[in-house]
Amino acid sequence: MKLATYKDGTRDGQLVVVSRDLSTAHYATGIATRMQQALDDWGFIAPQLQDLYETLNNGKARHAFPFDPAMCMAPLPRAYQRLTGTAYASHAALLGEGEGDLVVHQAVSDVLQGAHDAMVCANENLCVDFSAEIAIITGDVPAGATPDAALEEVRLVMLSNAITLRHVTHSVQSHPSASFSPVAVTLDELGDAWDDGQVHLTVQVAWNGRKVGMCDAGTDMTYTFGQLVAHACKTRALRAGTIVSTGTLSNAGFEKNGQTEWPKGYNCIAQKRAMETALDGKATTEYMRFADTVRIEAKAKDGQSVFGAIEQELASLSA
Amino acid sequence: MKLATYKDGTRDGQLVVVSRDLSTAHYATGIATRMQQALDDWGFIAPQLQDLYETLNNGKARHAFPFDPAMCMAPLPRAYQRLTGTAYASHAALLGEGEGDLVVHQAVSDVLQGAHDAMVCANENLCVDFSAEIAIITGDVPAGATPDAALEEVRLVMLSNAITLRHVTHSVQSHPSASFSPVAVTLDELGDAWDDGQVHLTVQVAWNGRKVGMCDAGTDMTYTFGQLVAHACKTRALRAGTIVSTGTLSNAGFEKNGQTEWPKGYNCIAQKRAMETALDGKATTEYMRFADTVRIEAKAKDGQSVFGAIEQELASLSA
Repeated sequence: MKLATYKDGTRDGQLVVVSRDLSTAHYATGIATRMQQALDDWGFIAPQLQDLYETLNNGKARHAFPFDPAMCMAPLPRAYQRLTGTAYASHAALLGEGEGDLVVHQAVSDVLQGAHDAMVCANENLCVDFSAEIAIITGDVPAGATPDAALEEVRLVMLSNAITLRHVTHSVQSHPSASFSPVAVTLDELGDAWDDGQVHLTVQVAWNGRKVGMCDAGTDMTYTFGQLVAHACKTRALRAGTIVSTGTLSNAGFEKNGQTEWPKGYNCIAQKRAMETALDGKATTEYMRFADTVRIEAKAKDGQSVFGAIEQELASLSA
Repeated sequence: MKLATYKDGTRDGQLVVVSRDLSTAHYATGIATRMQQALDDWGFIAPQLQDLYETLNNGKARHAFPFDPAMCMAPLPRAYQRLTGTAYASHAALLGEGEGDLVVHQAVSDVLQGAHDAMVCANENLCVDFSAEIAIITGDVPAGATPDAALEEVRLVMLSNAITLRHVTHSVQSHPSASFSPVAVTLDELGDAWDDGQVHLTVQVAWNGRKVGMCDAGTDMTYTFGQLVAHACKTRALRAGTIVSTGTLSNAGFEKNGQTEWPKGYNCIAQKRAMETALDGKATTEYMRFADTVRIEAKAKDGQSVFGAIEQELASLSA
């Protein structure tokens, strides 16, 4: 099924069930009002949401309304935990960060942005970068769970855009926010595209309307979601509603005629600048400016948008 | 006023108001059931809780019951954000960590432990350390708030004990959990002891019943709570319910007869080991073992326990 959270003026919004083709939606009122509620009691609540989802897909939900992604908060608008990993070693290699070992960090989660919310930033001179990522939401994961056991606790999958201020050194300041696709989907919605903790979909990234990335997210994923979660829960349990992000998507470059090529493009500007530096000795692409737009989307084999699109503009915090 | 969260089998527990002398309590039902609810809507809810608190202190609350700290979850049992800083530069200096600059990290908050809950650990050979700290809970803090403005948004103060596994290198694995005092108190409860973002109380730390620390928390605090919060909110807002911890308390040592002395003791075992190394060339105090106990408490001038005591035992995760 596909779930979203509609804006209603509160911090947690209203849980809605969205049809597979993203055309209609229905409030989940009567089942659960908030996404965290559903995650806290998934075994009891999910089957009821699934029933509503099927009724909605069959066009028989009585109070269905047209789905508007601009009305969406993040599917989980605030989370008790967000972790972000370095799932794609080719990203770290490109940026010269670390040895490709798996690193998982705690990340900001007190307010998560909706797919059409502005990316806000106090100062466009801080080298503002986007980052196309995939994220999961877990149920309760016991301490010490193996990667396989950890995958059993994956509840929902989303796309994400995390902002990095590349010229800010303190980590708590340099990663001010993250945004999420309009809908979060259960694993069955991905079909074959979900395999062994990897999402085999092409993630399209456009910057100011220009297609800059088309990463095969299931290729070159060095550490699967199972490994990310198992790493995080090694010494303690993770509680329901934990978001785990891949970190920036990346397809490895390859040699051709003595030069490295990256035909799948880039998923953050820092990748592009590293490619330029590798090829030409210097980076020429500048970071984002106010009013720049970013669009991130993934389509299924049938051309259907799986999660809806993240479509954001960079805006001034003070505006 | 003094607030606590009673265990009721749910993830968020039940908000209770506790009398100033910690002898009686009263459910806040009818005002707010969960602590996060109160924090989300503090301006509206806090005055009602304050009324109940005064009635309780006057012995006139009709359904008051004896307060039992063993029934307490953390005052905020799960938080949308927990940040931990390096407020005491003498701690960093002793441990040879950094240059004494202020560093603030995102920390685990999906489940926070109650004052009498066991500190659980899979393996006692990971060099398990306690850490006596002070923590605040904020309201909504706007991005870019100055230290003075940030202090206006401090809602509650608590004691905290954070576990560190000293022999685990990955940060997400080495800081598995944190525990909090039975009650969280508003600033007026601290009276003169709250001054300019510092808590001028002596925090008593006992390990296996032996008093090991009696830190003057208001002395040697290099970075005040105002500075910690201002650092964290430099590029983004913080939302209501953000916990900000000092990191390990520490009083600086001083020279006497050519040797450094630390008459106020230690607030984590790593401090003690660093003192031993400085004095004798090697650390002899071992880290915690299963069944070890830690007790952390702070008393007001009148001898009254301000927050109640953290009293924990180290237990095996698998037990």
